Amino acid sequence: MSDPVEFYFEFSSPYGYLASHKIDQIAADNGRICIWKPFLLGEVYKTTGMAPLVHQPLRGEYALNDWLRMARYMDVAWKMPKTFPVNTIAAARAFYWLNDRDPTQARLFARSVYHGIFGEGQDLSKPEAVADIAASLFVDKEEVLAALQEQEVKDKPREETDKAIEKGVFGSPYFIIDREGFWGSDRLWMVKKWLQSGGW
Amino acid sequence: MSDPVEFYFEFSSPYGYLASHKIDQIAADNGRICIWKPFLLGEVYKTTGMAPLVHQPLRGEYALNDWLRMARYMDVAWKMPKTFPVNTIAAARAFYWLNDRDPTQARLFARSVYHGIFGEGQDLSKPEAVADIAASLFVDKEEVLAALQEQEVKDKPREETDKAIEKGVFGSPYFIIDREGFWGSDRLWMVKKWLQSGGW
Repeated sequence: MSDPVEFYFEFSSPYGYLASHKIDQIAADNGRICIWKPFLLGEVYKTTGMAPLVHQPLRGEYALNDWLRMARYMDVAWKMPKTFPVNTIAAARAFYWLNDRDPTQARLFARSVYHGIFGEGQDLSKPEAVADIAASLFVDKEEVLAALQEQEVKDKPREETDKAIEKGVFGSPYFIIDREGFWGSDRLWMVKKWLQSGGW
Repeated sequence: MSDPVEFYFEFSSPYGYLASHKIDQIAADNGRICIWKPFLLGEVYKTTGMAPLVHQPLRGEYALNDWLRMARYMDVAWKMPKTFPVNTIAAARAFYWLNDRDPTQARLFARSVYHGIFGEGQDLSKPEAVADIAASLFVDKEEVLAALQEQEVKDKPREETDKAIEKGVFGSPYFIIDREGFWGSDRLWMVKKWLQSGGW
C-alpha cells in the first residue's frame, strides 16, 4: 500500500473544515488511507508573517463570502462562530491525546469539533466544551479534563506544528502526498488528479 | 447578452499567466465575452499588507514548485524569468494605450507579453522591450515609445488599479462575474461552475 495522504489542518480554519468532508473519500478512492494532523496556524504565522484572513483588508471580506458559497456548493452545514478566529489549542491537545489511544475515535472527535465550530457556530475554545464533545463520543469527560492538564499533552500540538513547518506546511488545509504539498480546499481537484496519476 | 467576465491580472503574476490560457474559452463556452484588466499588484499590496509570494517563507518555495507543476499540467510553456517579480508598469501602460485603439490587438499584446515573461523568461521590464513586443504585432515601435511618455498613458495603470481595489480585487488573477469575485487560477473550476449555473 502506498504512503498515507497527510491532512494538515487548524481547527479554526473554515477551509480545513470544508476539506475535512472530502479528503478521506478522495484518499480511499485512490487506495490510500488519510492521516489527520491538526496544527496551530497562529504558530505557523510567526514563521510566514501572515495574519488571520478576517483581519486582512479585502481578503477578509472575500473569505467570509467564499466560505458561505463553498459550504452551499458542497452542501455542508455552515454557521460562522461569533468569536473568530477560535482558540483551538484545547481541541488540538485532546485530539492528539485521543489519537494515541484510538485513532478512529480521534477522527470522530475531530469531525465533531469541526461540526460544532463551523456547522453550529459553537464556542469550543474552552477545555470544558472540548471535553463535552469527547464525552458525546463516550470518552470519560473527567479523564479528558485531567489529560488536558498533563505537560506532555499540553506540548504536543506545538511539537506537531514545528514538524509540520519543517515539512513546508504554511496554511490550512495542507495535504502531503509522497512529499508533494498541496495547499487549500480549492486544490482538492489537484490532490485527486495527483493521486490518480501518481504525479505528472 | 450577459455582462462580460472581468479578468484582472498583473503581468508579473505566474498564476495570472496560467489563467490567461483558459479564461477566454471558459467565458465563450458560457456565452460571455471576457475583458482583460491588467493592474499593479504592488499597489494592491499597499492596501492588503501582503508581499510578493517569492519573498514569503515557506509560501515562496511552494509557489516556485506549484507554477512548474501547474504549467506542466496545463501544457503551457514555462520559464521562470531571472529577475522576479518583474516591473510591469510599461507593459500595463502600453496595454491600456493599445486597448483604446484596438482591443483585439491589445489582447494579442497581453498574450505576447505574458508569453515573453513566463513562456520564455524574457526581461520585459523596459519600455524598449515592451515596444518590441508591440512592434511584433505591427504596431509602430516609435509610436509606442512616444505614447509611453504621455502623462495620461502613464497614469492609466494606477487609475485602473484603484478601480480594481474598489471592486475588491486583492490578488492575481481575480475574476468578476456579475459582481461575484473569484481569486486564483486554482478557482477556474469554480468560475466555470458559476457561469454554468448562474450562481448557487
